[in-house]
Amino acid sequence: MKTAVIIGLGLIGGSMALELRKRCGYQILGIDANAENAQKALALNIIDKIVDYNHITNADMAIVAVPVDIIPKVLQKALDYVGEQTVVMDMGSVKGSICKSVENHPNRKNFVASHPMAGTEFSGPEAAIYNLFDHKVMVFCETEKSDKHLVEKAIEFAQKLNMRIKILSPEAHDRHTAYVSHLSHVSSFMLGKTVLEIEKDEQNIFDLASTGFASTVRLAKSDAAMWCPIFLENRENVLKSLDEYIKNLEEFRTLIQNQEDKKIRKTIKEINYIKKILK
Amino acid sequence: MKTAVIIGLGLIGGSMALELRKRCGYQILGIDANAENAQKALALNIIDKIVDYNHITNADMAIVAVPVDIIPKVLQKALDYVGEQTVVMDMGSVKGSICKSVENHPNRKNFVASHPMAGTEFSGPEAAIYNLFDHKVMVFCETEKSDKHLVEKAIEFAQKLNMRIKILSPEAHDRHTAYVSHLSHVSSFMLGKTVLEIEKDEQNIFDLASTGFASTVRLAKSDAAMWCPIFLENRENVLKSLDEYIKNLEEFRTLIQNQEDKKIRKTIKEINYIKKILK
Repeated sequence: MKTAVIIGLGLIGGSMALELRKRCGYQILGIDANAENAQKALALNIIDKIVDYNHITNADMAIVAVPVDIIPKVLQKALDYVGEQTVVMDMGSVKGSICKSVENHPNRKNFVASHPMAGTEFSGPEAAIYNLFDHKVMVFCETEKSDKHLVEKAIEFAQKLNMRIKILSPEAHDRHTAYVSHLSHVSSFMLGKTVLEIEKDEQNIFDLASTGFASTVRLAKSDAAMWCPIFLENRENVLKSLDEYIKNLEEFRTLIQNQEDKKIRKTIKEINYIKKILK
Repeated sequence: MKTAVIIGLGLIGGSMALELRKRCGYQILGIDANAENAQKALALNIIDKIVDYNHITNADMAIVAVPVDIIPKVLQKALDYVGEQTVVMDMGSVKGSICKSVENHPNRKNFVASHPMAGTEFSGPEAAIYNLFDHKVMVFCETEKSDKHLVEKAIEFAQKLNMRIKILSPEAHDRHTAYVSHLSHVSSFMLGKTVLEIEKDEQNIFDLASTGFASTVRLAKSDAAMWCPIFLENRENVLKSLDEYIKNLEEFRTLIQNQEDKKIRKTIKEINYIKKILK
């Protein structure tokens, strides 16, 4: 029986575990620095067994699904233990610093840098769900540094999950995700903060919140332990996207202040083009 | 048979028409300045007949569901035509300027200022749907200036739509909606703008967009003809909320730049409180 070791049994690690068992028939071994999380994952039948790192040696796959600031240490350790056939995939939302952290590891070829562009605003083993990855994108980076057969194994796995595959350099990945993922989180966190602050004075303001607000602020429910390290590890790109966002907000603010009816309509109509892109 | 005249046959007017016929058994008469829209609404069976303003006199209800900059003119005209038993409700997302515009109308008592806190990012008669208003809030303003029986009629109607009812002053309504609705739209429009701008240089960036981005940017698909007037009519409140939002973004930007790990985590954890509010 094929086995996979999942390190980090939260939303992503847990959801990967569910799919590996269901779609690929793997036995699922679990590791979590938080003993309570590991026990929960076992009780929820997300993993078959709690194990140590030495089980990686005979495993077909190891998935590292911990916050991005912790990935380098865990990845290092996982690579120390790999056997010839073990592919190690991380699930980090930032790729530059992670790829760099293992560039000189003697078992670098066992590593396939990965990022599934999928998630929810929830966290922990309870957040693990089926079908989270269907029709989403799996990004692989620096595949030229990985063993060809192990890259094939990673691709095959992503295909079983019905994912679309994209190969990007770590730099391109980090630049792009700053805009389409990390910036959305900052904008949503700050929207939540702004409304919570006013709510102190304006009781029941949330009574008026409709589905529009709920949608825009959804990501503000996301986990600090996951997102703080992402913002810091991808700092340069996040700051750049944030500067452009703030500049756009300030320009739009000026249009409203000066009652520039025509320019506001023109701006909105141009932005509406996003309809055609996001089907 | 009871009759309602719906003026403005888009998302909100059209959806109100569907409910009035289905849940209240009304005959639905329609008016739209855009003849093509009116024909579409007829073809889609949203209305029973296209009529003129003089049909308001014998109607039980008139609903004004046009953009907020056009409401004062349309509302004036609708009130000119009311019969004793006609309740006129507007659906405007801004209430101060609208209430003010009819304060001296001889038939002011026939008007119940209304705002259903519901919508989607779509527009036009094709966007009309059933059940849009269920479990949402209907705000009524200045009910003390309306005929008591007509307020009761408006409340009864909102109850048939399964709506929760809230009575607010126009000032409180406009202040609150700036935060929980109008600011969300600005933040989403500008997020869309920022990502569209970078996309010119970074082709295929949208391939990476996940459900998180889609959720945060959803409102950027909203209609310019509806939203530009809302921002302008509620200018003071929108500017205030926008200033606080930009200030929060800038402070968070500084935390990222200075790598203030602890402060970022603390900030996010405090914002996560929104989970408890938005169930």
